[in-house]
Amino acid sequence: MDLDVIRELVVKNDSKIVLLVIDGLGGLPNPDTGRSELEASNTRHLDRLAADSVCGVTVPVGIGITPGSGPGHLALFGYDPLKYNVGRGTLEALGIDFDLKRSDLAARGNFCTIDEQGLITDRRAGRISTETCAELAAELRKIELPGVQVFVEPVREHRFMLVLRGDGLADDIADTDPQHVGKAPLPAVAERPRAEASVKLVNQFVEEARKRLADKHPANMLLLRGFSQWPELPHMSEVFGLNAAAIALYPMYRGLSKLVGMSVLETGTTVQDELETLRQNWDKYDFFFVHYKATDSRGEDGNYDAKVAALEEVDTIIPGIIALGPDVFMVGGDHSTPAMVAGHSWHTVPFALWSKVCRRDRVEMFDEESCRAGGLGIMPATSAMPLALANAGRLTKYGA
Amino acid sequence: MDLDVIRELVVKNDSKIVLLVIDGLGGLPNPDTGRSELEASNTRHLDRLAADSVCGVTVPVGIGITPGSGPGHLALFGYDPLKYNVGRGTLEALGIDFDLKRSDLAARGNFCTIDEQGLITDRRAGRISTETCAELAAELRKIELPGVQVFVEPVREHRFMLVLRGDGLADDIADTDPQHVGKAPLPAVAERPRAEASVKLVNQFVEEARKRLADKHPANMLLLRGFSQWPELPHMSEVFGLNAAAIALYPMYRGLSKLVGMSVLETGTTVQDELETLRQNWDKYDFFFVHYKATDSRGEDGNYDAKVAALEEVDTIIPGIIALGPDVFMVGGDHSTPAMVAGHSWHTVPFALWSKVCRRDRVEMFDEESCRAGGLGIMPATSAMPLALANAGRLTKYGA
Repeated sequence: MDLDVIRELVVKNDSKIVLLVIDGLGGLPNPDTGRSELEASNTRHLDRLAADSVCGVTVPVGIGITPGSGPGHLALFGYDPLKYNVGRGTLEALGIDFDLKRSDLAARGNFCTIDEQGLITDRRAGRISTETCAELAAELRKIELPGVQVFVEPVREHRFMLVLRGDGLADDIADTDPQHVGKAPLPAVAERPRAEASVKLVNQFVEEARKRLADKHPANMLLLRGFSQWPELPHMSEVFGLNAAAIALYPMYRGLSKLVGMSVLETGTTVQDELETLRQNWDKYDFFFVHYKATDSRGEDGNYDAKVAALEEVDTIIPGIIALGPDVFMVGGDHSTPAMVAGHSWHTVPFALWSKVCRRDRVEMFDEESCRAGGLGIMPATSAMPLALANAGRLTKYGA
Repeated sequence: MDLDVIRELVVKNDSKIVLLVIDGLGGLPNPDTGRSELEASNTRHLDRLAADSVCGVTVPVGIGITPGSGPGHLALFGYDPLKYNVGRGTLEALGIDFDLKRSDLAARGNFCTIDEQGLITDRRAGRISTETCAELAAELRKIELPGVQVFVEPVREHRFMLVLRGDGLADDIADTDPQHVGKAPLPAVAERPRAEASVKLVNQFVEEARKRLADKHPANMLLLRGFSQWPELPHMSEVFGLNAAAIALYPMYRGLSKLVGMSVLETGTTVQDELETLRQNWDKYDFFFVHYKATDSRGEDGNYDAKVAALEEVDTIIPGIIALGPDVFMVGGDHSTPAMVAGHSWHTVPFALWSKVCRRDRVEMFDEESCRAGGLGIMPATSAMPLALANAGRLTKYGA
């Protein structure tokens, strides 16, 4: 649904909407037992919620498409991820809580190894330690470029973030990573004329870095990808009329929330801290995004039992959220991360929406197969927000 | 999903994908028994496959739209048939295995009957025999036009194919068939200026044919429809990174495969021959389209029992395909051809996809109602290919 259609229908009231995103929620059957992580877990609060809700499964981006965290969350926030794209450089900066400004030019960097001919022998520089990465980043941070500030921050192992800050920067710049060993790093090239000045700066940075890294084997060169600037997303206040807040333990999700204009709330280090933060801020906002990460992390680890345990952990905060009396309570995921796949996947994601007028279906359990048979069927993830607004009495009639 | 999005995500690996198209697969309940052809047939191999797969029903073009063979297949090949259209003339040429060249101008021809005033009295010339059609085609083939070669080939009964071959031809030409008796055949008219030279040639052909057919009553005139040229479809190698091969007994399906860049494999005359061809070529390609025709033919005949028997015949090759060890095995149909309708229909079509990570659902039988309750629900047929690529590990993440 086009956001302009929704925007025209929005009315305000004092209802409260909660969206709990269980990262990487969907799973796959364990071949030994035939049960998915959700089917195997004792998530009785989620099951009870599903029994009182209308359920379905969401398609984050499109059938067969495996989403990254950016597209998966934007879809649940109501933004078509095929239309609104967040660049890799921007996500890298958001992911380390870097205080990105609107005109900053960000890129994802890799340290790599080159041989005497300047050809890449290892695109990941032997996965140097994060400590080494931090030392090298500190060295590169000293590079000076005319008219712009240079920020270099370590991310993890061989990965770092580069940000240039100044006037007139543009992000239409091709990757310098040739994606294959045996080739030389590419010079940065402008994809549109407006990026020519930025390209000059980037290439100047790379050449200076090459000198400073020359004796740092295996990290004796770098590659840059995903040049990007702050994407101009309409804010949730503008399109949905919502004063929205985000509660998340990981920087990436706080950053994504900022992109759509949410207030990011200070919280602690556990899911119980997140619940407490929700409680303390209940009166101040009318939409809350609460993010739970461990399900995705354990799925990425390929650890089925640990993902089951994570599902059981997030299950414990459901009664506390219900006790706050939300008008609409949604539980979903940004994508599936089956332990069987040990990574994000394209599979649909269980979803439940509770409200007094949700048209409860016959689903009794919160799992992949049960939810699919629910009242919402197979639904684009972008439909969650319009549906939430409707259930909250925040959308007027379309047409007379 | 836009093919440009898929194209960007494609990676290559050594997986094998098989798409078995059971033409006209979907059916309708026999009013005497309440069972569809699939429900009545003993297709135990298909049922076992469905039980191990994720199932659904496909919508070939759109809800309520009955597809021809062209759109039905293009959709399963991943091409939106509303965007990529194959003209009737082109399909007619492909359907008789005519060696169509890229710049050829093709049309579907009908012999018809006109009276002394030149008005049509029978648009199908009394459905003359195919033999008579062949004799008349041989006569028309003698017509000479300036600068182009003329090909006229019989198709069936009153139907023939006209192809003009030469430089600078264009297909923006309106039909000469007025679609009603009591009217005169229309002159060919250019729909765009670039087709004016071609129109002149077509009208010259028609006037010469009128003279040569004058004493051939009831086939004393002709009508031309569906002027078209080879449609510029991106090849499966470009958009999906697949080295694809087609195995089909009928020319039409071999021709449609050529349009999307598949290699057409020599095969025999039975479905067992098709299986053998698949076996012999297993190492040479990474995608195989295998076509089975009899289900559609028997459905078109309105012969319920014969369609059941055809389903049981194609069922026999399922174990042989599985024995080859495909990474992804899809079974579907280009459209429904219920014996009750004795023709193509708009109904959804059963679909099953097996892979190790398909997220098997609770479907136990391969039939219309069972599949609809499956994990894929009601799905656009164009989603089959992205889903197959995902299950084969051939699509990377969208966004970071």
